[in-house]
Amino acid sequence: MSGNSFGKLFTVTTFGESHGVALGAIVDGCPPGMPLCEEDLQRDLDRRRPGSSRHTTQRQEPDRVRILSGVFEGKTTGTSIGLLIENTDQRSKDYSKIKDQFRPAHADYTYHHKYGHRDYRGGGRSSARETAMRVAAGAIAKKYLAAQGVQIRGYMSQLGPIKIAFKAWDAVEQNAFFCPDPSRVAELETYMDQLRRDQDSVGAEITVVAEGVPVGLGEPVFDRLDADLAHGLMSINAVKGIEIGAGFGAVSQRGSEHRDEMTPAGFLSNHAGGVLGGISSGQPIVARLALKPTSSITTPGRSIDVHGEPVEVITKGRHDPCVGIRATPIAEAMMAITLLDHWLRQRGQNGEVSVDTPRLTQR
Amino acid sequence: MSGNSFGKLFTVTTFGESHGVALGAIVDGCPPGMPLCEEDLQRDLDRRRPGSSRHTTQRQEPDRVRILSGVFEGKTTGTSIGLLIENTDQRSKDYSKIKDQFRPAHADYTYHHKYGHRDYRGGGRSSARETAMRVAAGAIAKKYLAAQGVQIRGYMSQLGPIKIAFKAWDAVEQNAFFCPDPSRVAELETYMDQLRRDQDSVGAEITVVAEGVPVGLGEPVFDRLDADLAHGLMSINAVKGIEIGAGFGAVSQRGSEHRDEMTPAGFLSNHAGGVLGGISSGQPIVARLALKPTSSITTPGRSIDVHGEPVEVITKGRHDPCVGIRATPIAEAMMAITLLDHWLRQRGQNGEVSVDTPRLTQR
Amino acid sequence: MSGNSFGKLFTVTTFGESHGVALGAIVDGCPPGMPLCEEDLQRDLDRRRPGSSRHTTQRQEPDRVRILSGVFEGKTTGTSIGLLIENTDQRSKDYSKIKDQFRPAHADYTYHHKYGHRDYRGGGRSSARETAMRVAAGAIAKKYLAAQGVQIRGYMSQLGPIKIAFKAWDAVEQNAFFCPDPSRVAELETYMDQLRRDQDSVGAEITVVAEGVPVGLGEPVFDRLDADLAHGLMSINAVKGIEIGAGFGAVSQRGSEHRDEMTPAGFLSNHAGGVLGGISSGQPIVARLALKPTSSITTPGRSIDVHGEPVEVITKGRHDPCVGIRATPIAEAMMAITLLDHWLRQRGQNGEVSVDTPRLTQR
Amino acid sequence: MSGNSFGKLFTVTTFGESHGVALGAIVDGCPPGMPLCEEDLQRDLDRRRPGSSRHTTQRQEPDRVRILSGVFEGKTTGTSIGLLIENTDQRSKDYSKIKDQFRPAHADYTYHHKYGHRDYRGGGRSSARETAMRVAAGAIAKKYLAAQGVQIRGYMSQLGPIKIAFKAWDAVEQNAFFCPDPSRVAELETYMDQLRRDQDSVGAEITVVAEGVPVGLGEPVFDRLDADLAHGLMSINAVKGIEIGAGFGAVSQRGSEHRDEMTPAGFLSNHAGGVLGGISSGQPIVARLALKPTSSITTPGRSIDVHGEPVEVITKGRHDPCVGIRATPIAEAMMAITLLDHWLRQRGQNGEVSVDTPRLTQR
Repeated sequence: MSGNSFGKLFTVTTFGESHGVALGAIVDGCPPGMPLCEEDLQRDLDRRRPGSSRHTTQRQEPDRVRILSGVFEGKTTGTSIGLLIENTDQRSKDYSKIKDQFRPAHADYTYHHKYGHRDYRGGGRSSARETAMRVAAGAIAKKYLAAQGVQIRGYMSQLGPIKIAFKAWDAVEQNAFFCPDPSRVAELETYMDQLRRDQDSVGAEITVVAEGVPVGLGEPVFDRLDADLAHGLMSINAVKGIEIGAGFGAVSQRGSEHRDEMTPAGFLSNHAGGVLGGISSGQPIVARLALKPTSSITTPGRSIDVHGEPVEVITKGRHDPCVGIRATPIAEAMMAITLLDHWLRQRGQNGEVSVDTPRLTQR
Repeated sequence: MSGNSFGKLFTVTTFGESHGVALGAIVDGCPPGMPLCEEDLQRDLDRRRPGSSRHTTQRQEPDRVRILSGVFEGKTTGTSIGLLIENTDQRSKDYSKIKDQFRPAHADYTYHHKYGHRDYRGGGRSSARETAMRVAAGAIAKKYLAAQGVQIRGYMSQLGPIKIAFKAWDAVEQNAFFCPDPSRVAELETYMDQLRRDQDSVGAEITVVAEGVPVGLGEPVFDRLDADLAHGLMSINAVKGIEIGAGFGAVSQRGSEHRDEMTPAGFLSNHAGGVLGGISSGQPIVARLALKPTSSITTPGRSIDVHGEPVEVITKGRHDPCVGIRATPIAEAMMAITLLDHWLRQRGQNGEVSVDTPRLTQR
Repeated sequence: MSGNSFGKLFTVTTFGESHGVALGAIVDGCPPGMPLCEEDLQRDLDRRRPGSSRHTTQRQEPDRVRILSGVFEGKTTGTSIGLLIENTDQRSKDYSKIKDQFRPAHADYTYHHKYGHRDYRGGGRSSARETAMRVAAGAIAKKYLAAQGVQIRGYMSQLGPIKIAFKAWDAVEQNAFFCPDPSRVAELETYMDQLRRDQDSVGAEITVVAEGVPVGLGEPVFDRLDADLAHGLMSINAVKGIEIGAGFGAVSQRGSEHRDEMTPAGFLSNHAGGVLGGISSGQPIVARLALKPTSSITTPGRSIDVHGEPVEVITKGRHDPCVGIRATPIAEAMMAITLLDHWLRQRGQNGEVSVDTPRLTQR
Repeated sequence: MSGNSFGKLFTVTTFGESHGVALGAIVDGCPPGMPLCEEDLQRDLDRRRPGSSRHTTQRQEPDRVRILSGVFEGKTTGTSIGLLIENTDQRSKDYSKIKDQFRPAHADYTYHHKYGHRDYRGGGRSSARETAMRVAAGAIAKKYLAAQGVQIRGYMSQLGPIKIAFKAWDAVEQNAFFCPDPSRVAELETYMDQLRRDQDSVGAEITVVAEGVPVGLGEPVFDRLDADLAHGLMSINAVKGIEIGAGFGAVSQRGSEHRDEMTPAGFLSNHAGGVLGGISSGQPIVARLALKPTSSITTPGRSIDVHGEPVEVITKGRHDPCVGIRATPIAEAMMAITLLDHWLRQRGQNGEVSVDTPRLTQR
């Protein structure tokens, strides 16, 4: 019930500040006997890693994760898994200026008033650096689910004003944007270069899809699968909106259009996004996330300091001009953690996860 | 951790099927000494009650709630509060036809595969009738919060294709739609009448606003206030999307636009929707919900039965052509439960809820 | 996480005061498809029922339980089960005297200081009457476990100074004491009759045994099976001590004596009480509970009132001179709930509960 | 809800195996602004440390703890606190023999059947080495409580057959046994020396006392303070019994004797052990733990191997002949964690912890 824990049977608990000693996680409830090594986690960590293109923060963090427990002779033992990433590039600098200022749209103001005492270096606990541990833990969930035939993948579906239609999964890993259409990458690069010159930032939309999910995951009425997904995805830094399936598009749909008709061969559409009545339907789970523009820009902004006095804030440092660019692996991780948690919950109450129901579906 | 529970310190657990004996809830963690009577709950139940206009289901349920425990001499005792609403209008009818059919876009298919055995009468547990207990429990949370100066109100911001700009809170309770602009009500009625003639249904968007929320509610990193709100709101039947503040609009915003600048007099805008870094900022909390069109329409649809054979389904009975019309009190309830839960969590860890921070804000 | 909830996957949440309208429970997480009717619950409720012999309280409560949801066509649906028992014999009487007094060794004093406002009628929420719902919920768990070959039974192993050696399960249900040795019943009756004449009360020890429990239940390191059992059993009113297996006797045992050696035919002893390293070993789970003497006696006692003034208290009314006499079904219920909860947790993480391990054991 | 987590608002989650890389914990929910440094934790770790006398295991572990997060400029920030102790003395040895054998009374057999795959080196996760993190986390709770006037101390009240009456707190830290009577220490040493010559082990009883606890901690009906204490204390390795106050002695007490009468100056006795109706009464909380003899002895014992074949087991290595000797700091830690958790829960629901009630009590 700790606010730094997520999941009820597959539980991820994390710690760590942006400029602290290390980030860490305890992953509990992982089924035993699963082959697991650090490289399994590293792959996704590298996909999220800062400094990997000119469009993301230039902070250099190798983000090498160590598994400290819960794995023996290359396989999980079912006991809690300790994970650790040491911070190496906490550039020492003078924080005397920002420590008393509240950067607009940052958590400075709210952390200050909630806790009274805060680690202001790089945002402390509120930094998106925290999400590295989500990605590490999510990789464990992904691996278990993959062995059951569940594949979780995401892509950028919008960068600022530029909407990107899905073309091919293959394309996604071929560029720094997780863009699913190679013909649009140049446009995105041009946009980002201009944005940097403008000293500004922009939002993004990420789409995450889980395929091969069996029927039956989700616990009505409050822990519906979509509700827990919304919880997990909305808990990612900078996320301001969540859609499942048709999402806000469902508002103007009619029932005769929205309802996904079924035939013996499967569903004829997937406006539901793979969830009916809070329970997975066997169709692909489709979620979309809206990420706000980062507030760390060098364009001056009005704010106040801890004494209530007006100040002008310029946020220097190494920041992502679009936090959405590195968000795809994080969104995948939260979906994986949520799905595995519900997989175990379903198995707990209902004995086994149904895998023999018709799942032939069109998206 | 029950899937039928919500909240960690202020906890609501519910039971009840659409056509069962009764609906009930246990509300735990309510602070003691608060005046409480059944009428406090009835007010919001009446706002949600079926059969109150020609635009909602014609099922007639008085929805009289009884308080069975936890209140003594008119005040809460701090012990668990038992609530009960008996079902009275479970019209007896022949279910032999639908019991083996999966109505498209309903939970029939997923409940069948998850549990094996299901109460098919009126959707059983998956029926929106379940939300009555959310409203009853939410009224308790609302009352506590109101005494602290927190006001939670919602309205319909879109009905199908018709967007409705906010005009005035006073208007909301004056019509069957929770429409905040009296000049638009006739248009909505015309639309609904046509929809009924079309034998179709439509989606809606609801906006919920909490004003007077102090700074400091929300538990990073996973139980951020917005994440728990998304959880609670997405757990409402038919909801397919959640936005906080700018929501999906933030995708195309620039950082210089999105960031809510501050002056000693307060914030200059509220794109954040009252949450920064997962913690309430003192600004109004603003959330929007997308509700899908109900799938219970009399236009025939293709589906399968429990044997996998194709069937044509026509859903008769007493159904809401737009479930969004009655959703406003439910959304308010889930926001109230979430806020009170975080109020108590904040007080638990940090001693008291900060109420003396500058909350002067513009929306 | 509500203090009125127990269990993580099989979750029991209760409400109700001694002299309130009704007692109730929500049982969540029950596997679907299990035959269940009110009579299944009534059997154990009748075993616990007040007024069934001259040695227990003369309050007359039929304690008829109703199932309000979660069961359809005679079988569980996997959704939350609502249970209700209405209070019928809340004798109206004058509480003006006791409402301001703290009865010694009662919860009056602590409820008053914790909550500020309390239902003083018959102890309110702190009354052992609350345990009726544990018994009702426990009967559901018992039934599921019985179908898996797990049998849970208890008996009185000590009444005041009288130690009672186990003789036969058959004997237990043949007398009002749950005494496992028919030859000792007359002695117990004589003791109780004298106790009543002395206007005093006495403690008791109950032993509960679960046979047929497979290897593998329990979640190290904090939710060990014995730790959760201790939690559940200690939460019963009046319990002051818990032992598993050798219990406090293990203090003076040597390792060569305590360790339960094993042969291919099974364990050679059961000092462990069926739990090794917090996980069930396949041997019978053996727990003992110490119950204090009830404090409701007519012998005057010194106390204070809410103003801090000294008072002399005489507790009249209908009270059990030995609360332990009716405690056996309650202890069985808490053990059943705990075991089923861990059964589901084991199945969730580890796929299935191992039932093919050697369980041949001697007690 | 992870089995490796304890506490609902003050939550401790741990990982680590006896011969793994490291032990770690995440402590969440600690109130912010509390001065905290590694030395605060080290003190209790040193009290528990192996190899500190000839009567405990000769494994040499410095058990230096590092704080990795949650503390900034010497004070807690309210965010999750990461703790780490690296294992340094995992003596490499040949485990080929024991890996297929189940040591009697060890968790080998149950871990094997529960998880299928286990770290058999030194007991892996089931080793008492795990308790180091409880002590580290407990030191944080102790420090917070101490600042509120709550003092938590324990002592050995029985070693094998030798009962030890309490004499003075001062004496406890002056000997290797946490013996509260200096005149008995020589007797204990003689006993232990003989035990070692006998190649055997023995049990012990520990008493833990919390003084200065205000009225009002504990959440009926399931999360009673004594129930949560029983949970926490029974979760310590080797514990087989728990008593609160009079404990099993209450069985043969009469009500007129057991009930703790009150006067305006306070309680006249403390048979309740500081808990009435599951809520702290302001009296000292008194709990006793029964610890079994360690099963790691060099006297041969009968067992089976993973193939079900009979084997003779001799457990060599560095083991404690009486695990109770080092258990006092662990028991204190679990009591501290439980009390702080309930302190925060009380504050959450009821606004503040009552400290102005009469607490003058005699033990």
